[in-house]
Amino acid sequence: MTTLFRKSVRALPFAAPSSLAASPAVPHRLIAALRPMTSSTTYYPPLVRLSKDLSAQTYAVILSSPPVNALTPTLLRQLQAHLLHLHADQQSYLNHGLILTSTFPNIMSAGLDWDCLIHNEETESFQDFEIRFRNYLNLFQDCCKLLLTISMPTIAVVRGACPAGGTVLSLCCDERIGVSSPSFLMGLNEVAIGMNLPSWIHHLAYQTLGQNSKTRRFLQQGYLVRSAEEALELGYIDKLVYSNEDIAENVGSELRHYLSQPWTARTLTKKTQNQHVVDSMGPAAIDDLWMTVGSAEFQEKVKLFKQKIRNRAKDA
Amino acid sequence: MTTLFRKSVRALPFAAPSSLAASPAVPHRLIAALRPMTSSTTYYPPLVRLSKDLSAQTYAVILSSPPVNALTPTLLRQLQAHLLHLHADQQSYLNHGLILTSTFPNIMSAGLDWDCLIHNEETESFQDFEIRFRNYLNLFQDCCKLLLTISMPTIAVVRGACPAGGTVLSLCCDERIGVSSPSFLMGLNEVAIGMNLPSWIHHLAYQTLGQNSKTRRFLQQGYLVRSAEEALELGYIDKLVYSNEDIAENVGSELRHYLSQPWTARTLTKKTQNQHVVDSMGPAAIDDLWMTVGSAEFQEKVKLFKQKIRNRAKDA
Amino acid sequence: MTTLFRKSVRALPFAAPSSLAASPAVPHRLIAALRPMTSSTTYYPPLVRLSKDLSAQTYAVILSSPPVNALTPTLLRQLQAHLLHLHADQQSYLNHGLILTSTFPNIMSAGLDWDCLIHNEETESFQDFEIRFRNYLNLFQDCCKLLLTISMPTIAVVRGACPAGGTVLSLCCDERIGVSSPSFLMGLNEVAIGMNLPSWIHHLAYQTLGQNSKTRRFLQQGYLVRSAEEALELGYIDKLVYSNEDIAENVGSELRHYLSQPWTARTLTKKTQNQHVVDSMGPAAIDDLWMTVGSAEFQEKVKLFKQKIRNRAKDA
Repeated sequence: MTTLFRKSVRALPFAAPSSLAASPAVPHRLIAALRPMTSSTTYYPPLVRLSKDLSAQTYAVILSSPPVNALTPTLLRQLQAHLLHLHADQQSYLNHGLILTSTFPNIMSAGLDWDCLIHNEETESFQDFEIRFRNYLNLFQDCCKLLLTISMPTIAVVRGACPAGGTVLSLCCDERIGVSSPSFLMGLNEVAIGMNLPSWIHHLAYQTLGQNSKTRRFLQQGYLVRSAEEALELGYIDKLVYSNEDIAENVGSELRHYLSQPWTARTLTKKTQNQHVVDSMGPAAIDDLWMTVGSAEFQEKVKLFKQKIRNRAKDA
Repeated sequence: MTTLFRKSVRALPFAAPSSLAASPAVPHRLIAALRPMTSSTTYYPPLVRLSKDLSAQTYAVILSSPPVNALTPTLLRQLQAHLLHLHADQQSYLNHGLILTSTFPNIMSAGLDWDCLIHNEETESFQDFEIRFRNYLNLFQDCCKLLLTISMPTIAVVRGACPAGGTVLSLCCDERIGVSSPSFLMGLNEVAIGMNLPSWIHHLAYQTLGQNSKTRRFLQQGYLVRSAEEALELGYIDKLVYSNEDIAENVGSELRHYLSQPWTARTLTKKTQNQHVVDSMGPAAIDDLWMTVGSAEFQEKVKLFKQKIRNRAKDA
Repeated sequence: MTTLFRKSVRALPFAAPSSLAASPAVPHRLIAALRPMTSSTTYYPPLVRLSKDLSAQTYAVILSSPPVNALTPTLLRQLQAHLLHLHADQQSYLNHGLILTSTFPNIMSAGLDWDCLIHNEETESFQDFEIRFRNYLNLFQDCCKLLLTISMPTIAVVRGACPAGGTVLSLCCDERIGVSSPSFLMGLNEVAIGMNLPSWIHHLAYQTLGQNSKTRRFLQQGYLVRSAEEALELGYIDKLVYSNEDIAENVGSELRHYLSQPWTARTLTKKTQNQHVVDSMGPAAIDDLWMTVGSAEFQEKVKLFKQKIRNRAKDA
């Protein structure tokens, strides 16, 4: 696992181009920040790293859990801890923006953790599985709530694939910048996996993509967008960049639009804007999801699915 | 009446083209299914027929009430009966889609039945008329509710005119395919007729067309779309086809997007999506409508209007 | 002040072109109506004038408070009085439309009155300021509510700048016609000024511009649209005209779409449409705003801002 991880991160083509280094307005150190394993900027061990770029006034929450940034309980707890820390200490970050991204160029996040959706008959009763699932979903919803309510302006930099839960996390940010790449993949394909969408994810999709016949079809059909260009056209992302070098510049210019606003006015407005999504989270949303996840239909399907992915991984 | 009906349906140019017959994936029998009076596929007498195409995994609810598919109490009760039957027996139709369409190539439905909106001073007191109207609207709302909550994916195939109530029925489906034709007509023109729109129809329009200044104007001004091309551009329909032959293929390919999804996940998601529309139906919505329908202003206008239509029919 | 006012209005290039005078369908007298100081059409003294054009079936509420139509308590009370009058006497105006516009070609309204947002330490305690602010906001909300619920169809003719509160008033109308001009400026830039947006203004923006990622960014970033062309593209205005001469014709043709509808049906539909905005007004919305306006951060910022504007005015 460690080997795979090392390999993945070494493959990252990030480097601060010299042309940007001269301009103080451009958060050129973001590029450096995205470089993994820089011990001075790492607060927690691997799964989620918090990077800080003082000159660019940005924090980056970087998902770094090989191989695919699955949203495991451990990863989510680290994400939650980072976000709670930033929430609690917000007075220190009045002029900072937050970036949510991934260490890996080809994958942002594979979404929810299969193991938390599958009843492990060998180790737990079905009741225990239900409790485990509910705790897990609660943790995921809490991370989403923290992103939706954090006072820093938040930008998801979507590099590579971020289906289902990965897209949900991205939609909880104020803005999304997508990087054009053959591995780009985005969408709320929960239905295709066999999970229903609770109302707060509908609200989240509507407030990003607009509520209309097209968005409704996407949700019912578990539609996946397969290029950053299409994602821009449909509204899944707000900005499209064509290289890793362009990320820093664009993140910087987008963040400045937020950071130049008076802090209290902007953050209260953001809170009002996201309130209806936050209000529709809660135990009822998990009850709703349990209707599919707790069904025999889903359990069978997802076990087969997981097996298929494992076999594919072995073959590769 | 029967003569007119026979004539209308014989004029239907539907025929299964041989090129489609070879492909099992294409619900080519839909074309045959749309042919009226095939006794083997008729469960109920004329006004609404339920057709079944096993190979194409489709049921078609076909409005067949000459001359214009007015939504009379009898037609609505038949529609309700079909939908209740499909609701109750949904286990049999897990892999089926539902099509809502019309026997007549030039008219989908003329909308609500004038006779149910007019106080007949010769046969009833005003109080009796109010009760009759409320029962009628209740029946209409119930049909809409059944369409919005049915587990099968639903596609309205809009051929010809479907103003007002006809458009409402179409918007209650998951998707709309429009057939390009000079007789195409669609829109929520209730206001132009003199009826106000209760909040659930606003919600229905918004979740299809998007909520914005344009949609709001359309509702306030009783706007009618006069071509399928414009309907596609504005979002009234999701797909445009140019011939009856293309209907079957397109219905099939659209339905497959839904039917390939896990059943429970898709249907729960659909239910969550439509819940806010269903929740805003009910007696209050009928109270709201009664404010116009029960007014002297409306009663006078609608009587004149009906007379005009009758005179025009006589002249023709 | 009076001199400045006189100068401004004399500079108005309004004149009824002879080509329009012949057509009774065109409310050509609107142009004359927009001319200030015509005693026969003035019901109240200067700040807000109510003009009436019988042939064009229009009333015009014309903001006429030099130099920039700041929404002072006096102006708002006059606006409120005009709207209350039209509300109460609606039976007389069944076939009339209402235009909201400005006497000045370069400014529609500068928005809320700075003096009502600033604690005047010399004349009042902070508690007194809070009461004064709450009364003021209540007055502003009441004007918005009157516009949202008035039975006449309403069109805002946006000439010149109408940031913040000016845009809010415009969005409370059924439709907006913008006049192309170098001084055009529109947008909900409250956040940029340091005020947060209460939920009813979010709803108002969504029901005009659509609820999506773009609109959300505009609100959080206090975005200002700097040309009527962009305003049309983004949905801030519904129609763009290129000269004052075109205003009358376009207002007339837009109003006819509403006025040709049955009165009760149209007005009830309008009421249902705006109800959710009206419902989210009230004391809670003012509590919300007081969180920024009552803060030391805002008070300092706005005093500096006001000083800057004064200095600029002196230099000019």
